[in-house]
Amino acid sequence: MTATHAAGRKLKDAIFDANQACNEAIKIHGADAVTNATIGVVLNEDGKLATLPTVEKTFRAMDFADMVAYAPISGLPAYLDAAIDLTFADNKPDAKFGAIATAGGTGAIHHAIANYAERGDAVLTSDWCWGTYNVICTETGKRLETFKLLDAELNFNISDFAVKVDSLLKKQKSLLVVINTPAHNPTGYALTDSEWDKVLDVLKAQASVGKNISLLVDVAYIDFAGEKNATRAFMKKFSDLPENLFVMVAFSMSKSFTFYGQRTGALIGISPDEKVIEEFKDVGKFSSRAAWSNINRGAQAVLIKMTADKNLMPVYEKERDNLYQMVARRAEVFVKESKDCGLQIVPYRGGFFIAVPAENPAVVCKKLHDDLIFAVPLKLGVRVAACSTSFEKMHGVAEKILRAMK
Amino acid sequence: MTATHAAGRKLKDAIFDANQACNEAIKIHGADAVTNATIGVVLNEDGKLATLPTVEKTFRAMDFADMVAYAPISGLPAYLDAAIDLTFADNKPDAKFGAIATAGGTGAIHHAIANYAERGDAVLTSDWCWGTYNVICTETGKRLETFKLLDAELNFNISDFAVKVDSLLKKQKSLLVVINTPAHNPTGYALTDSEWDKVLDVLKAQASVGKNISLLVDVAYIDFAGEKNATRAFMKKFSDLPENLFVMVAFSMSKSFTFYGQRTGALIGISPDEKVIEEFKDVGKFSSRAAWSNINRGAQAVLIKMTADKNLMPVYEKERDNLYQMVARRAEVFVKESKDCGLQIVPYRGGFFIAVPAENPAVVCKKLHDDLIFAVPLKLGVRVAACSTSFEKMHGVAEKILRAMK
Repeated sequence: MTATHAAGRKLKDAIFDANQACNEAIKIHGADAVTNATIGVVLNEDGKLATLPTVEKTFRAMDFADMVAYAPISGLPAYLDAAIDLTFADNKPDAKFGAIATAGGTGAIHHAIANYAERGDAVLTSDWCWGTYNVICTETGKRLETFKLLDAELNFNISDFAVKVDSLLKKQKSLLVVINTPAHNPTGYALTDSEWDKVLDVLKAQASVGKNISLLVDVAYIDFAGEKNATRAFMKKFSDLPENLFVMVAFSMSKSFTFYGQRTGALIGISPDEKVIEEFKDVGKFSSRAAWSNINRGAQAVLIKMTADKNLMPVYEKERDNLYQMVARRAEVFVKESKDCGLQIVPYRGGFFIAVPAENPAVVCKKLHDDLIFAVPLKLGVRVAACSTSFEKMHGVAEKILRAMK
Repeated sequence: MTATHAAGRKLKDAIFDANQACNEAIKIHGADAVTNATIGVVLNEDGKLATLPTVEKTFRAMDFADMVAYAPISGLPAYLDAAIDLTFADNKPDAKFGAIATAGGTGAIHHAIANYAERGDAVLTSDWCWGTYNVICTETGKRLETFKLLDAELNFNISDFAVKVDSLLKKQKSLLVVINTPAHNPTGYALTDSEWDKVLDVLKAQASVGKNISLLVDVAYIDFAGEKNATRAFMKKFSDLPENLFVMVAFSMSKSFTFYGQRTGALIGISPDEKVIEEFKDVGKFSSRAAWSNINRGAQAVLIKMTADKNLMPVYEKERDNLYQMVARRAEVFVKESKDCGLQIVPYRGGFFIAVPAENPAVVCKKLHDDLIFAVPLKLGVRVAACSTSFEKMHGVAEKILRAMK
């Protein structure tokens, strides 16, 4: 009964499948015996969802009418200002900005792909990537092509990036590139300062010959990647860009505020040209009206209230930093043990996940079930969730993966 | 910088403009002197947002982790069950059902149009309609065509409906029809039992010659249209439909739970064929993943908690019914005074809005500003919000509109 373009669309859900296998093992062996490294949210050491007391306190003190009234289609203006401030911290580029409230980071990515890639054209991202990029491209009539994230030395593969950009722009007049950094999902990779320079050089070269280039930076996990301004230093590079190189940043409250299910994000546009920003806000508002009308006003109001209270923000940042440190300690165990036992992993620099390249990820994950370890098989390897695997249970996982691969 | 399909997209926002003009008048003349008939939510007689105590109580008693965890992409299963039960009450048709959680009613309509109309094809609705249908069609690469809602006697124009369906299906293999009833936005019209029979006869005739017909019923305002089962009686007619006549209902918590900004709805599919339902759930889940990943879990959990408590639901229904009665009393004033002074209006049978057909709606609305009355100029007439105009201020509005039209 569906339209022809939608016929047969069905999500493949490797995470759900892995998690379900895990839950079945828990039923038989008990939760203590099982290592669930499939879940993409921060769990405390006791396996319960980690939440931030300051966020909860603010949420509970809200006026009910503020929670349930409609928000403006583009978002509450003070929310958008707060989202911009949080996105850049002290690293605002010399440029004009605009923002549109979106249903989480997904909604932000949706709007960028819907409006900044031609129908039928390719959107470019790395081969290790969040599978939802592909779903959004399919839904909006685009397609996803990939460059190799890593070279043989496990550094950012700038040459493959340049080759793919060049080859697509032989066929396309414009190109949208999606880069998820720092704390890349699913690897934890982050572009270095000089890798960023090279990426921008490639894109500026294309812009200089008249191609319209859009760059979407997905920073969903940025607050789990290190010190606030250090992780955001690259954003300064978005100063004085050419007018036909448009940068967007996908802001999300999901991880930074443990506000996952409240679905609150924003798409932020950065351009030297105010007209590009106005156009960005117009088409974003149009897409929002079509997809969801407006997004969770209560969650926006919580952010406004929190950021307006200068005494509260340091308390919140400390709480959030504690979660980051908890995740980092777990990842450290895995990274160290990988090195000790000789398991090759993608360089991990922060974030929720660590990735192990593998020939047959599904086979490796299946084998790991013998050890009651559950991880997610991706196309290029195995994803281990440092966000949700306890410090204690993380010990020994690397070696068991190595054994499962043999 | 946008892709060609998005270039120049910009929302026209007649409601926002009207509301802004009103707010300027309030600054000069004070709120007491001004009649704001532009706002599309229920305001109490004191002009404050009406909320439901039982909803607030449930909301405030929620576990915080339940509010902020991710929901499944398709929605919490118990939420979907509750949405189905609330949608039909005692009028479940003899059919199979499926549901997908959506970002409000808008998200439900988005999914139906995205997946059940071919790119480039027309979607059919009435000429008096919610403008956002058009925005969704544009965004998803469809276009909106309309039939005349009313005939010369101000009854449902079944002949124009049949003509338009027939004419579109001469060019299209399939057709999606959108009907907003009862308590149609912006007129308050509702199809009678026999009008429903005629609509379904037209659609069944097309299905019988092999056309794939989808029907989306938008019931956003149903709980402001009368007694629960009386307003839903037409749903029984969706029993034993042909397999190629697929019915969807857009459920929304926005009005029924005064949960506007919490963005919680569902798209419900009704078919004799389980395969059609499975396909519906698959493509809906895919669209959800692409647009917003998942919707407000907290709001879903509130509905689950409320509907699980059989003692709570009658209390909630009483509170909601009080709001309905408050809106109905205001509408009654307008309808009676229209009749008394000879102002022709679209037959009002419930809901938030009343519509007055007019040749030059913008001119009429502008003229009304002299009386410090602010209403929304639509293409076919003037929209008066019974939901937000107080009982006291509603007196005299009809006559002033009549004068403004002369």
